[in-house]
Amino acid sequence: MTSLNENLMAEPETGRVFIALVHYPVYNKRREVIASALTTIDIHDLARLAMTYGAEGFFLVTPLEDQAELARKMLEHWLEGWGSSYNNDRAESMRRVVVAGDLKEVEERILEKTGRRPVVVATAAGDGPGRSSYFDVGPVVRRGEPVLILFGTAWGLTREVLEKSDYILAPVKGPTGYNHLSVRSAAGIVLDRLFGERN
Amino acid sequence: MTSLNENLMAEPETGRVFIALVHYPVYNKRREVIASALTTIDIHDLARLAMTYGAEGFFLVTPLEDQAELARKMLEHWLEGWGSSYNNDRAESMRRVVVAGDLKEVEERILEKTGRRPVVVATAAGDGPGRSSYFDVGPVVRRGEPVLILFGTAWGLTREVLEKSDYILAPVKGPTGYNHLSVRSAAGIVLDRLFGERN
Repeated sequence: MTSLNENLMAEPETGRVFIALVHYPVYNKRREVIASALTTIDIHDLARLAMTYGAEGFFLVTPLEDQAELARKMLEHWLEGWGSSYNNDRAESMRRVVVAGDLKEVEERILEKTGRRPVVVATAAGDGPGRSSYFDVGPVVRRGEPVLILFGTAWGLTREVLEKSDYILAPVKGPTGYNHLSVRSAAGIVLDRLFGERN
Repeated sequence: MTSLNENLMAEPETGRVFIALVHYPVYNKRREVIASALTTIDIHDLARLAMTYGAEGFFLVTPLEDQAELARKMLEHWLEGWGSSYNNDRAESMRRVVVAGDLKEVEERILEKTGRRPVVVATAAGDGPGRSSYFDVGPVVRRGEPVLILFGTAWGLTREVLEKSDYILAPVKGPTGYNHLSVRSAAGIVLDRLFGERN
């Protein structure tokens, strides 16, 4: 399945935005650092979001080889198997998915493809130090340099990942105090705030 | 389980926004009118979106009694069973969920609760006649009258439902032509555009 990833990397450049769904390192409910399991519905939803908002690559980050293998089998089904003819829109979105072992690999692949290290923008459900507003980060991610937006699974990206990022986006909030959104919903809201066209 | 629904209806009023996830009438892939199956992950995601954006009720619309029964069992698990102590944030969001047989019943329950028929705003993934912009619909839904926002499952709300609504929101678009989003992602984006606080 390396061929699929190489295939993606050889595609004409359609943008400079990349997203990553991070399964390690993230917290569990007790704030221990874990590697979470892949969720196929998250992969489909974020792949379709990547298509919609013009992200040229969607990295699935997991260091677990059995999980990576599962992801590759899923991609194969959608790109070459029965899924590719059943639902072409979905198959199309899956072409942007790349499996990567860790965030370092993701950054290196973006460097390889674009010639530059990406500006890394982390997202977080909670308040905390160093959060940046959408008004500040929006112009940065739209100026055409390579950008990598990180979404955490489980109970969120670890403090180390947040601290190493160039920006940490302020949490998505509505008019209430509640902000326990699924990563599927939150990723859509974040990408729409950064790249959506109000109409 | 009627008690749960009545319980919800007797709660203090926290807003005038209601959302509905419609399983009938919707189209299937061949544009036939069907009743789609419930998806538990959609229920969780939209319940959490309802909490985040201050919707006081989230109606699950299905005419199929076995599906309604399934939904009630799921609610019972989260509201009274093991789920209620395992994950309180999730349980809290499930308190807003009400099972309804059809859209007429939804509108009647809102009338009963608020004393007014809601302004009905349908959403659609496709372009078509009569679409309204977010600039037009935003002020309408924020002026405090009861509002019901409809989200379709499967291949979307039928033309009849769209035509009977007061407004049809223009489809969510990013900078690309692709707009095949999951209802989980799309509902988040729509609610954030209407009620989110830019920060």
